[in-house]
Amino acid sequence: MIIDIHGHVVAPPELYAYQSILLSSRGSHGKGKVEVDDDTLINTVWKARPGTPKKTHIELLNEVGTTMQFISPRPFSAMHSVKPEKIIHWYTEEANNLIARVCKLFPGRFMGIAGLPQSMGGPIENTLEELERCVKELGFIGCTINPDPYEGLGTPPGLGDEYWYPLYEKLVGLDVPALIHSAGCISERENYSLHFINEETIAVMSLLNSNVFKDFPSLKIVISHAGGAIPYQFGRFQAASYRANKEPFEESIRKLYFDTCLYTKDALELLFKMVGTDRCMFGTENPGSGSAVHPSTGRYMDDTKPIIESIEWLTDNDKKMIFSENAKKVYNLNL
Amino acid sequence: MIIDIHGHVVAPPELYAYQSILLSSRGSHGKGKVEVDDDTLINTVWKARPGTPKKTHIELLNEVGTTMQFISPRPFSAMHSVKPEKIIHWYTEEANNLIARVCKLFPGRFMGIAGLPQSMGGPIENTLEELERCVKELGFIGCTINPDPYEGLGTPPGLGDEYWYPLYEKLVGLDVPALIHSAGCISERENYSLHFINEETIAVMSLLNSNVFKDFPSLKIVISHAGGAIPYQFGRFQAASYRANKEPFEESIRKLYFDTCLYTKDALELLFKMVGTDRCMFGTENPGSGSAVHPSTGRYMDDTKPIIESIEWLTDNDKKMIFSENAKKVYNLNL
Amino acid sequence: MIIDIHGHVVAPPELYAYQSILLSSRGSHGKGKVEVDDDTLINTVWKARPGTPKKTHIELLNEVGTTMQFISPRPFSAMHSVKPEKIIHWYTEEANNLIARVCKLFPGRFMGIAGLPQSMGGPIENTLEELERCVKELGFIGCTINPDPYEGLGTPPGLGDEYWYPLYEKLVGLDVPALIHSAGCISERENYSLHFINEETIAVMSLLNSNVFKDFPSLKIVISHAGGAIPYQFGRFQAASYRANKEPFEESIRKLYFDTCLYTKDALELLFKMVGTDRCMFGTENPGSGSAVHPSTGRYMDDTKPIIESIEWLTDNDKKMIFSENAKKVYNLNL
Amino acid sequence: MIIDIHGHVVAPPELYAYQSILLSSRGSHGKGKVEVDDDTLINTVWKARPGTPKKTHIELLNEVGTTMQFISPRPFSAMHSVKPEKIIHWYTEEANNLIARVCKLFPGRFMGIAGLPQSMGGPIENTLEELERCVKELGFIGCTINPDPYEGLGTPPGLGDEYWYPLYEKLVGLDVPALIHSAGCISERENYSLHFINEETIAVMSLLNSNVFKDFPSLKIVISHAGGAIPYQFGRFQAASYRANKEPFEESIRKLYFDTCLYTKDALELLFKMVGTDRCMFGTENPGSGSAVHPSTGRYMDDTKPIIESIEWLTDNDKKMIFSENAKKVYNLNL
Amino acid sequence: MIIDIHGHVVAPPELYAYQSILLSSRGSHGKGKVEVDDDTLINTVWKARPGTPKKTHIELLNEVGTTMQFISPRPFSAMHSVKPEKIIHWYTEEANNLIARVCKLFPGRFMGIAGLPQSMGGPIENTLEELERCVKELGFIGCTINPDPYEGLGTPPGLGDEYWYPLYEKLVGLDVPALIHSAGCISERENYSLHFINEETIAVMSLLNSNVFKDFPSLKIVISHAGGAIPYQFGRFQAASYRANKEPFEESIRKLYFDTCLYTKDALELLFKMVGTDRCMFGTENPGSGSAVHPSTGRYMDDTKPIIESIEWLTDNDKKMIFSENAKKVYNLNL
Amino acid sequence: MIIDIHGHVVAPPELYAYQSILLSSRGSHGKGKVEVDDDTLINTVWKARPGTPKKTHIELLNEVGTTMQFISPRPFSAMHSVKPEKIIHWYTEEANNLIARVCKLFPGRFMGIAGLPQSMGGPIENTLEELERCVKELGFIGCTINPDPYEGLGTPPGLGDEYWYPLYEKLVGLDVPALIHSAGCISERENYSLHFINEETIAVMSLLNSNVFKDFPSLKIVISHAGGAIPYQFGRFQAASYRANKEPFEESIRKLYFDTCLYTKDALELLFKMVGTDRCMFGTENPGSGSAVHPSTGRYMDDTKPIIESIEWLTDNDKKMIFSENAKKVYNLNL
Repeated sequence: MIIDIHGHVVAPPELYAYQSILLSSRGSHGKGKVEVDDDTLINTVWKARPGTPKKTHIELLNEVGTTMQFISPRPFSAMHSVKPEKIIHWYTEEANNLIARVCKLFPGRFMGIAGLPQSMGGPIENTLEELERCVKELGFIGCTINPDPYEGLGTPPGLGDEYWYPLYEKLVGLDVPALIHSAGCISERENYSLHFINEETIAVMSLLNSNVFKDFPSLKIVISHAGGAIPYQFGRFQAASYRANKEPFEESIRKLYFDTCLYTKDALELLFKMVGTDRCMFGTENPGSGSAVHPSTGRYMDDTKPIIESIEWLTDNDKKMIFSENAKKVYNLNL
Repeated sequence: MIIDIHGHVVAPPELYAYQSILLSSRGSHGKGKVEVDDDTLINTVWKARPGTPKKTHIELLNEVGTTMQFISPRPFSAMHSVKPEKIIHWYTEEANNLIARVCKLFPGRFMGIAGLPQSMGGPIENTLEELERCVKELGFIGCTINPDPYEGLGTPPGLGDEYWYPLYEKLVGLDVPALIHSAGCISERENYSLHFINEETIAVMSLLNSNVFKDFPSLKIVISHAGGAIPYQFGRFQAASYRANKEPFEESIRKLYFDTCLYTKDALELLFKMVGTDRCMFGTENPGSGSAVHPSTGRYMDDTKPIIESIEWLTDNDKKMIFSENAKKVYNLNL
Repeated sequence: MIIDIHGHVVAPPELYAYQSILLSSRGSHGKGKVEVDDDTLINTVWKARPGTPKKTHIELLNEVGTTMQFISPRPFSAMHSVKPEKIIHWYTEEANNLIARVCKLFPGRFMGIAGLPQSMGGPIENTLEELERCVKELGFIGCTINPDPYEGLGTPPGLGDEYWYPLYEKLVGLDVPALIHSAGCISERENYSLHFINEETIAVMSLLNSNVFKDFPSLKIVISHAGGAIPYQFGRFQAASYRANKEPFEESIRKLYFDTCLYTKDALELLFKMVGTDRCMFGTENPGSGSAVHPSTGRYMDDTKPIIESIEWLTDNDKKMIFSENAKKVYNLNL
Repeated sequence: MIIDIHGHVVAPPELYAYQSILLSSRGSHGKGKVEVDDDTLINTVWKARPGTPKKTHIELLNEVGTTMQFISPRPFSAMHSVKPEKIIHWYTEEANNLIARVCKLFPGRFMGIAGLPQSMGGPIENTLEELERCVKELGFIGCTINPDPYEGLGTPPGLGDEYWYPLYEKLVGLDVPALIHSAGCISERENYSLHFINEETIAVMSLLNSNVFKDFPSLKIVISHAGGAIPYQFGRFQAASYRANKEPFEESIRKLYFDTCLYTKDALELLFKMVGTDRCMFGTENPGSGSAVHPSTGRYMDDTKPIIESIEWLTDNDKKMIFSENAKKVYNLNL
Repeated sequence: MIIDIHGHVVAPPELYAYQSILLSSRGSHGKGKVEVDDDTLINTVWKARPGTPKKTHIELLNEVGTTMQFISPRPFSAMHSVKPEKIIHWYTEEANNLIARVCKLFPGRFMGIAGLPQSMGGPIENTLEELERCVKELGFIGCTINPDPYEGLGTPPGLGDEYWYPLYEKLVGLDVPALIHSAGCISERENYSLHFINEETIAVMSLLNSNVFKDFPSLKIVISHAGGAIPYQFGRFQAASYRANKEPFEESIRKLYFDTCLYTKDALELLFKMVGTDRCMFGTENPGSGSAVHPSTGRYMDDTKPIIESIEWLTDNDKKMIFSENAKKVYNLNL
Repeated sequence: MIIDIHGHVVAPPELYAYQSILLSSRGSHGKGKVEVDDDTLINTVWKARPGTPKKTHIELLNEVGTTMQFISPRPFSAMHSVKPEKIIHWYTEEANNLIARVCKLFPGRFMGIAGLPQSMGGPIENTLEELERCVKELGFIGCTINPDPYEGLGTPPGLGDEYWYPLYEKLVGLDVPALIHSAGCISERENYSLHFINEETIAVMSLLNSNVFKDFPSLKIVISHAGGAIPYQFGRFQAASYRANKEPFEESIRKLYFDTCLYTKDALELLFKMVGTDRCMFGTENPGSGSAVHPSTGRYMDDTKPIIESIEWLTDNDKKMIFSENAKKVYNLNL
């Protein structure tokens, strides 16, 4: 069984046209809704993505052999730095609703991960109602957290800051994990893709240098894209922990979970060695940043299943944990 | 022969007291100078660093077996975002002068790398005179470039921007390489150490997505800290290059050089595999972020020489290139 | 013959999904393009608009009896205040291209009016190339001008300011008129629809209190929505002109043209009386703000043809001028 | 009987010299007071206005035949965006005091309308004491409200926002109406006169799209200058109300009152038709924006009494309501 | 003969009412003019000032025995930080014109000192035309310079900065001196009166620490209010000059001129001792800050003539220089 | 007995290097501490100051004959406008600790005056703990207050504002006086030394125009540098008090204390005459701004003891009060 914990919904253009209208009207038309029927939704998931015309979302998952994928709204579209705040809520709700419909249309194939209507400078409390709605009403099993709702326009409180505590409390209360995944970046220098990586690097250190896991021992946090730069720059942070006589970094890092959203074997091996296979969950962002055919293998780069399987020093149990068991445990799945 | 291309001067407190006065007076006292005699300078280099009382700079280098270290001003003290600009110049000149004196006092042991008096929002042309002075008068063999003189307070032009061209032209004219190394970060969330990593990640992509190496084919750029997150997130950028039908990332990355400023074996192996041993130069930042004793080895973590030597798949020639030959070639050293 | 000079393209969601991606990625994916085939375009024009399910664009025009409509990009989607400027250019070009295709698919039914890639704070010169492309290559017969590319975020130069002169010069050179039509408004208080009206009020006064028509005697400017508040508040401006011994307002106002984009008979009569039937051109924004069924007539409110026809004091020639002849002359149409 | 509900005090230069000192000293001299004796006040009202040398305030009113005029401080002098807030209070109090003296000096001829010491960014509660003082101590019968105390420097809360509720509550408590009339505009593009019109357009929609009249059913709001652009653009807002299935605009508009401060017959007719003669009160701003002699009639344009009287379709009762009865009822006058 | 070099025009309220209108309308009415006849002007000068009812401007001068006073516009009314710049020009021109009329109406009694239309952030070149007009057309003999046209809202270039060079060049070309006198201060903490003192303190040091007098050896600069704090804090600046091996402060200070605008004998003595009687010119600001009756003497405090005359150690020649001869020389008066 | 109430600690470079690290790291290393042993501290106090090589701190005091000096942290290094606030606290604590050690090493020679960790925009309450620690644990006898923790970057509340009341209350509770002494100034125009003077001028007026001494009758405030410009500009403020019928300035000024930190005899005489010898305390800032040898006397200018002694009109009792008795009383010393 293969569970891919890091996917995003492939939505029809109507969702983004809806977002475009919200941005153009600043919400003066009222909430409205995305009008799209089930056939369109099904076709979209089956439809070839622009630029990679040969394969559809389902085909790609089939090719990998993915049994189940967790899908959340497309992060870089989250527009968390836009005003007024209400249009973030409206768009996020519609995106979550669409995901719920896709999950229902493809039962067992997709599970919903909620996007949160975070707002630059706004209180985190404003996201709790939507989180609760998604989990309790739509059956979602987790959410994403954008550590930078300022989208590069200012400095948000670090994830170790008490600003985030109401959300952590709610996550613990609902017993669902959160995937740390930043959104857009309003910068001509640092595009959203680099921003993802950099924000994850900051997120890990902000969490581990804080009291978050002391204050919320049962909080489950998953870091996207295999932890940004952290496993690679591991020694730098180990040395800092030794010098400060704090908990050794190789121990504190294991309070977190990581997806395997990397596309080279060497990097995946580094990840498994640094954080342990019991903290890693198969995740691909497929279709997404890795959706390109590698010229030498002829395979999509985000089909990393064979790569992981080819790592000789991983035991069968390691692989099972990575591919499904860790995810089942972390996300409380009975499959 | 061991050449460590990434070191910073261990300066006496008088240098930083001088900087403190410049900041307090905003330069209204005039430039003044750092008053410190040769004995003090020698003692400082020999003196134990606060917090790691057993070893001095020279002792640490001896322990590693470093024949020669390239030293630049301490990056996080560069204060590039401070006004008025003149005090950046004054401090940088004094810091470079001190380095020149240390190099002379320890002939053959240290080589100077110039700090540049970059200024948030100021023209890059203002740094050229000091670069030329350092190379032509003080005998320095390179410089550092801070890709973010805003120190987190705004968005500088990316390194691919024509803003930087006058500096690149001067570097090519003087035939000296530049080490990309960011400075401080005015943020309560992203400390300077994380900023280093993140800025290097941005720097690599900004350079490779630009015309810089087409416009300056002989420009030599070295990325600090082994390239930030790039070698680890390699596949992400490969996929992007394939998708865009651009030069494959595994080729374009090889326009850059990298130091080996990592402190774990697995990460070093990843670096060598991703960019090639001919693009890597031994560098440790010693004493610096890696200067902590690893509890299981009892050795300083920034003594990575034995780690590199222990990588079995590296040939003798690979190691020779990493430890000295690449540096000699890149920095035009006749040793 | 009925010519409706004020219409906007009814585009498929793919255009706005494209815009949404530009906004989310800030252009880091490159320009890309809107991928939509001719059938979809044709269907869209024929397709019922959301919320008014019974009638399509063509059906609505047919119901009115409109022979030809001039169509421009949807103004409130222009996103002129967004950075980086390049994504405004990309979106505008795609929107104009789509209009060109629609015009070709419905020959004689639609004529293209170019949207301009204006940019908050940017030079107006940056719009000239797209204007020229639209007129010379795509066969467009005019353009819209957004008097407030700041979209409420700041104070642009008034239309009488020399900032706009390069555009006026180009318009005169190409011999095409411009429709003054503002775009979005980033404000929770003044929505885009009120902003249209208010900006038109400002635009009229800014132009008439300037040297624009002295410096560009052959410039043809059309004010949307029947001139905002100006014809209604006419006496106020008359009095000011008398008091200042300037050209009487009732004369200077006749340097401008106006559409008839009002939806009540009394207002239309006021317009015709204040500015003269020779300065008015039939325009409806259909489908748009007036697309609602009036409960007492059962007709779409933007079907103002019968209303105008019912104004007894208008001569046949007046009506002919309003419905087609003025437009033919102003837009140089040989029909 | 003719009641003109929209007039402003014609004050001696001492009032504005007082204001100038407050602005120059930022209040550091203390409050001080306007020193002007009754004779000067009387002379000022009788004195010819600069630029229209033949007629005085009283003569102009006599010429119209105005029995009574309501006078408030000159709106564009309100300086609501200036700091510190205390000088706004001081100036407003002196202006109101002067009005009280004029009313006493010309008994039955003038009634006082309070200016409020509104302050950009300050709480509306700070204006309540002065409102109460004017009504209870000075015998005033209403007040003006500036919907934009930011004077164009930012975005105030719309009149539908709860920010304004304490003022509405006080107005209801005192049972006095408020005239919506904006003040200055710090903009080189939109002068104060256009700002009046535009702010009134926004004010109407902000009020009607809110819960204000549900929450304060007995609140009496009068819109200056005949409602800005609203009666002219009436259909636009009707269509929006139909489309949204809200209360039809032609009904909701009748929650408001309007002055007749227009200077052309056609516009006045439009006003009466759109909002009903029972919602209109004679108002001229005389002497003010309309105080210019029309070249073809030889009469002051703000003498609109004969114009209204000449509208044939108005009944005698309509005219009586417009000229006096509505005002008596709205302002609780026993005359 | 007594020449008082530091007086300001006592203008009728019409001037400030004019300014108030400019501020309220932001200039949208056009320039207009101050309408006041000669009788009013004469009466104003003769009229008792508010708050000190017993004495008029002329009476006060007579009481002192002042033969001639130099008068400039009231500094704190200069509104140099206000936008748009044109209204500063208009107000300044009207104020200067009024001064010219007063000088003509009281021949030999008053001489004009031009106010300059300085503008926060604007180029100093914009003031040159008005300076030239005042000197060449109105017969003025000098001007004031406001060292802080930002009125406390930001940091202007110091008087030693090359920003001011075009003005210095013009002053030298016209051979007229400038009186350094700041204007208003937009601050609730530092009122304009303290700002005068503080700005003069800064002005002296900015000039003396610059090349201004090297670059303009014949420039004549007079510091208001006896030099702010400088003569009192003299030793502080002497010590700094000795420590820096620069020209001794007791010498460099003598490049400047000072008025005697102090109101206590001890302070006047200090001034004369510190800068020399050949650099001091009688000045009182009468009527102004010193216009209060001292309870123990019963005399106006700004009548400092008897105080200066009572200083025993001053020679007759010293007194003559102070009272008239220095002024004649500096201002090129043939009396 | 000579007590010098205005001195600053002469600290070793390690203190400022510590500050430099805090600024460069923004505190990300944690607080750390200044590592310097007693011998170094003793040597520093005895060591010649840079630039005046012949005399040490102790030698200078000996030369003057100073029995005891009160020492506080070097004001211009206070960095109160820097963020994050915690590094201000850390630096201030270390500076105060160093002073405590110096006081202990030179018993009877030095007494500690606390620097307060004030922070731009932060609540004054945050300084109270350190004040209490210094007085209760370190035995300090007073503190300094920086009236401008914005260091020129904005406008702080004046000292008369209630913002400061919690500090005044604590001072009264601890029964210790405060020396008003501003810190750095982030301005290229107004250096810190001028800022001291100007801030003191503002401080005096802000306090005297407030209710502070009515609300805290036992509060003891000492103004540095002999009151800035106030004693020299005395008459200006006298006149204002007479005009406003307030307490005469010559009385209100006597609620404050002043040091004698002036370096010329005439200025000192002026000070004593204006405020009275019972309000003055010997203070020199030695070594500091006055530490330069006067060329004509060959003595350090800050050795003002002989100057004060040479003032003939001072009685022996006056001198005793100035040199020691006032200080004993104000600072509650039993010597």
